[in-house]
Amino acid sequence: MRIRTVMLGAAMALALEAKADEGMWLPSQLPSIAKNLKAAGFHGDAAALADLTRAPLNAVVRVGGGTGSFVSADGLLVTNHHVAFGVIQYNSKPDRDLITNGYVAADRAGELPANPDYRARVTVGFDKVTDRILGQARGETGRAYYDAVDAASKALVAECEKADGLKCSVATMFYGRDFYLVKQLELRDLRLVYAPPRAIGNYGDETDNFMWPRHAGDFTILRAYVGPDGKPADYSPDNKPYHPPSHLQIATDGVAEGDFVMLAGYPGITYRHRTAAEFADQVQWRLPTSVAVLKGLQDVIEAQGHASQDAAIRYASQLQSLKNGIKRFSGELEGLQRSDAVVGRREDEAAMLAWLATQPEAKTLKPDIDQAMALIAQGKDVRERDLLLGLLSSQTQLMRGALNVDRLAVERPKPDAARETGYQARDEELIQGQLKQIQRRYDPKVEKALVTSLMTRYQQLPPAQHLAEVDKVFGTTPAALAKALDAIYGATKFGDEAERNRLFAASPADVEKSTDAILVAARTLRPALLRIEDEKKGRDGDLLRLRPAYMQALIGYREKQGSAVYPDANSTLRVSYGKVTPLLARDAVTYAPLTTVQGIVEKNTGKVPFDAPQPLLDAIHKGDFTGYADPKTGAMPVDFLSNLDTTGGNSGSPVLNAKGELVGLNFDSNWEAVSASWKYDPRYKRAIHVDMRYMRWLMDKVYPSPALLKELGVPAR
Amino acid sequence: MRIRTVMLGAAMALALEAKADEGMWLPSQLPSIAKNLKAAGFHGDAAALADLTRAPLNAVVRVGGGTGSFVSADGLLVTNHHVAFGVIQYNSKPDRDLITNGYVAADRAGELPANPDYRARVTVGFDKVTDRILGQARGETGRAYYDAVDAASKALVAECEKADGLKCSVATMFYGRDFYLVKQLELRDLRLVYAPPRAIGNYGDETDNFMWPRHAGDFTILRAYVGPDGKPADYSPDNKPYHPPSHLQIATDGVAEGDFVMLAGYPGITYRHRTAAEFADQVQWRLPTSVAVLKGLQDVIEAQGHASQDAAIRYASQLQSLKNGIKRFSGELEGLQRSDAVVGRREDEAAMLAWLATQPEAKTLKPDIDQAMALIAQGKDVRERDLLLGLLSSQTQLMRGALNVDRLAVERPKPDAARETGYQARDEELIQGQLKQIQRRYDPKVEKALVTSLMTRYQQLPPAQHLAEVDKVFGTTPAALAKALDAIYGATKFGDEAERNRLFAASPADVEKSTDAILVAARTLRPALLRIEDEKKGRDGDLLRLRPAYMQALIGYREKQGSAVYPDANSTLRVSYGKVTPLLARDAVTYAPLTTVQGIVEKNTGKVPFDAPQPLLDAIHKGDFTGYADPKTGAMPVDFLSNLDTTGGNSGSPVLNAKGELVGLNFDSNWEAVSASWKYDPRYKRAIHVDMRYMRWLMDKVYPSPALLKELGVPAR
Repeated sequence: MRIRTVMLGAAMALALEAKADEGMWLPSQLPSIAKNLKAAGFHGDAAALADLTRAPLNAVVRVGGGTGSFVSADGLLVTNHHVAFGVIQYNSKPDRDLITNGYVAADRAGELPANPDYRARVTVGFDKVTDRILGQARGETGRAYYDAVDAASKALVAECEKADGLKCSVATMFYGRDFYLVKQLELRDLRLVYAPPRAIGNYGDETDNFMWPRHAGDFTILRAYVGPDGKPADYSPDNKPYHPPSHLQIATDGVAEGDFVMLAGYPGITYRHRTAAEFADQVQWRLPTSVAVLKGLQDVIEAQGHASQDAAIRYASQLQSLKNGIKRFSGELEGLQRSDAVVGRREDEAAMLAWLATQPEAKTLKPDIDQAMALIAQGKDVRERDLLLGLLSSQTQLMRGALNVDRLAVERPKPDAARETGYQARDEELIQGQLKQIQRRYDPKVEKALVTSLMTRYQQLPPAQHLAEVDKVFGTTPAALAKALDAIYGATKFGDEAERNRLFAASPADVEKSTDAILVAARTLRPALLRIEDEKKGRDGDLLRLRPAYMQALIGYREKQGSAVYPDANSTLRVSYGKVTPLLARDAVTYAPLTTVQGIVEKNTGKVPFDAPQPLLDAIHKGDFTGYADPKTGAMPVDFLSNLDTTGGNSGSPVLNAKGELVGLNFDSNWEAVSASWKYDPRYKRAIHVDMRYMRWLMDKVYPSPALLKELGVPAR
Repeated sequence: MRIRTVMLGAAMALALEAKADEGMWLPSQLPSIAKNLKAAGFHGDAAALADLTRAPLNAVVRVGGGTGSFVSADGLLVTNHHVAFGVIQYNSKPDRDLITNGYVAADRAGELPANPDYRARVTVGFDKVTDRILGQARGETGRAYYDAVDAASKALVAECEKADGLKCSVATMFYGRDFYLVKQLELRDLRLVYAPPRAIGNYGDETDNFMWPRHAGDFTILRAYVGPDGKPADYSPDNKPYHPPSHLQIATDGVAEGDFVMLAGYPGITYRHRTAAEFADQVQWRLPTSVAVLKGLQDVIEAQGHASQDAAIRYASQLQSLKNGIKRFSGELEGLQRSDAVVGRREDEAAMLAWLATQPEAKTLKPDIDQAMALIAQGKDVRERDLLLGLLSSQTQLMRGALNVDRLAVERPKPDAARETGYQARDEELIQGQLKQIQRRYDPKVEKALVTSLMTRYQQLPPAQHLAEVDKVFGTTPAALAKALDAIYGATKFGDEAERNRLFAASPADVEKSTDAILVAARTLRPALLRIEDEKKGRDGDLLRLRPAYMQALIGYREKQGSAVYPDANSTLRVSYGKVTPLLARDAVTYAPLTTVQGIVEKNTGKVPFDAPQPLLDAIHKGDFTGYADPKTGAMPVDFLSNLDTTGGNSGSPVLNAKGELVGLNFDSNWEAVSASWKYDPRYKRAIHVDMRYMRWLMDKVYPSPALLKELGVPAR
């Protein structure tokens, strides 16, 4: 039985009230929703937010794998502790354990250079280039359409990156409708200025991950440096602080339940505007199937690990990642079911199509929409097979290595720009790394059992999904599979590191000639894998061509409903707005939207991950919160919760109040929001932020840095 | 570091407000606190509650192991599903599974007789008998004081029980200060009238045990019958419904947060007025030591269970009970630490003694208090040894059996009244049962390992704690212990059921002559165990004599503070009052005090224990809650939470509103309240009740019984 959620009382009121807060808006869209922003409580001028290359949005930068923002004229930049963790780790040595102790630079000379590959990118250009990208593609279909878009994008990027210190990329909005060229200034000299101890920055660690209430001080302060000429430069002692075009001002007031907040950052990927069929596929097939298949692999590793301690150690990391995947997929499935996402999307799409039928655009849009839907429906035909073959090359060690070496031999003879993504010159280091880790992470018995689990499932698929090459390598019966695997893994020498190094360094021709059993298997599989890839690109090309019609219809339908459509997230700068919001977690359980230092004391066990440093415990015990405590309750805040629309990539995003001042840093979502990449459910979607009052209190009373507080414009009390 | 709780904001306000709600009052005390009752919101006359043999308190009865109350003039009685579970089980057969399906009697003829040993007791007398009990004891000390009290109590009870159908007992209030003779009419014909399915009555089972939010419909309705002459009688088809002296009226209004509630029932045992030294002993020694010793036994059983499947099965029940004990002790320890109970009690006691020093009574009271404290301090000398020997006879199977058979041989020759409690004629069936269960629950290897765990600890105790007899049986070194256990368990035939039956039936003289190794061991231990028992009774006698001085001082001190003292719980009828109260579970987490049917849907997995019956799910889905829903939120209530002072024995206790109407049945506490047997902490002590609106809705809309609702005075809507 499908249980529809019975919405009652307070939960209902909250849901309706919060509904308007969904959306990861392009800055350029904000003027058009200025009225909504104002109604939500924003005091500023929406027009001032429209250009992401101007203040205040140009203070928001990509850094590490997340988002950061400039907070001083001399290049101070705040982001999450976990986003800057590599920098802290890089500067830690046995006798200077910055992870455990944190770090407070005594002065500028004490600011520590980040790892050389750590980067911050300031967006300096964001230009619509749709015509240039689609010029050659128009009139084409399938693979040709895909290749034309790919070639035009590569050309534009290459041209753009001729300028010194610029990193460029092309982003599509609305799935192929609009294309933008994103120009970013890449800063290469970042330095560590202030980091709290791990037991503050990552208080609660995995146990609290995805959880609210939360008590982490997940922030770190860096400073960007440039060369004496003011241009991006590698680290040098002669470099000078970078003067960003603008910076955010830290608020002195805090937030309270119901307050307006907004957030800017670089959310990675969402699927909100996928078709109803794709929603159904995700919920009814992809998530449950992935969970089942991955659980099969987990069982294999656990069984083998029980039998052999060595195997258990070799596969510990893969096991952990399988478990994480299973947990995430299960959480997403649970969330989408709880939110009744499939039914909601189906009804919404049906209403949209019914509306479209009454509009003149139907004539141009409907045929493309029908074609797109037919293509998506076709995708079901071989989805099981493609899932299994994908796992065959991602969840194995030796097989993956052999497939990579084989493919490299195909790509290396081409000009670099024409090589397949993932097999270009710049990717070779990564491939070599994978070949190296086989030494520590491979056990033939376990790998055979993993391949058996996957290929047994493959063998059970209907004939239409079978590929001759795959059948040839693995056979079509369990007995044949066992025999084939004994032959491959019994005879290969690819398990020896020297042999792998030799083949990695060998010429394409030599690789082609190898008679090693696993390389022969990879070579046999190759035409099938290339065919799948080609088919996928053809399909992707057609969807890129056809989906804009679907998006166009959706935009029109929403316009008629009085609302705007944001493009699905794609790692470009977006703005969300909403409010500080409690969470009705379940019947009779309410999570308040602000936590206090009291919670640190409650959670503290003295053991990792609840081992708050003694100076923090002492300061809490002392209770000197003047100037930082919540004025109403007298409590010292730590983290807060909002209904802001976020996803992966928003880590470190600045959270601003109605006046545009910095009140928090985004650092996590709640577990119930795992499914938000498909559907924003206002009842459950929450984002978790560290409160700037907590950061300031730590910098004032616990690990003091008065000079830094002064530079941040919020002097010690 | 000891972390003192930092109390902030709302939590503080709630704590202060709730403080007055502690107390398990004797009904006779209520007039003296009438002002407090009125201030708390009670609308009635406190004087009307003073006599527990009159209405309304004489509607509150002991039933099963808990409390029940009459709710109709024709003897309908409500209690918890778990209190009446034995009755439901007794009436279930393979083809009539009342546990799974519940039961609705079609008419009076359909009311099903309870198991013959099921009883309800109506209190008909409660008279102070202090002088009669202490007459012979005054002037005595130690064991003589104890024996005099024991003999006087036994004589009074025997005299009282001469009356037909009466069960009598003597209860002491304030630890020996006052004694009462409790007379109860014992009803022997109870019948099952209405029970919800297990998946409603015990929804959530162990998973939700001690948890809030809760969603169980933990109620069952019975009817009491008497003989045609109106007197208690065993079941007979000729019996007629009992007409109780009074009955409670079910409320038609529900409760809301903050509402006044009161509760009457038979709480078992509390330690609130123990001395500061006893609090310290409990927290600093007894609880952590018990946890450590029991964990040792758990480890033994788990290790042996891994090696042998048969052993694992034999010890599954003991393992479960050890785990429960460890969980409970840990929870109590955690709670007492969280509430800083030791410091609180110490400071309170010091203030009391300082006050006493300024009073004329100090002269008479202080010497007794000093003596009591010295005795309590002495108790530390051999506490480790006594704990271990106690576990030796409770956590073994064969050894316990041998000790019982040996002791029975000592007691059997005495007149029954003089036999030690636990070894009287009426206890023999229980002992025989234990001897019988050895067949299923004993494995010599596991028992040897358990005894080794306990006796190894014993061997490490300082010499002053050693007993010659124990050393003789188990040796003083691990090697000697191993040898002794091999000898005892290798040679005994007591593992054979026939041999155990023979020895149980044998004459005391024959038992004395037995040369079976384990009986010889038991006989060797006997003088030591009898000595410990004798010392304990002597000590108990002295404490019974001396503690009243401590209580007298406490009562005087509290009087000066403007408050009254309730006696610690002792299974006599008590009244608590308080209010419907949320729980600030932890930082930023609030539990609302009412749950709704929405929570049943949320928790439901379709699998035990979250497998709500389809008719219930359908009715929730249908949403016909008219007349039962919360008027403000429209939600259908299930259970509610209050700060009422309760402990074990309060299961089934009626919860009344300000007008004295029945609004709920108590059925559990929250986990944080496990430590409330020592300290009532207003921040955490909560009691969990099933809402009478849920009961009525189930009886109206889900498993209807309109006739019953009419008899209850709350006809179907």
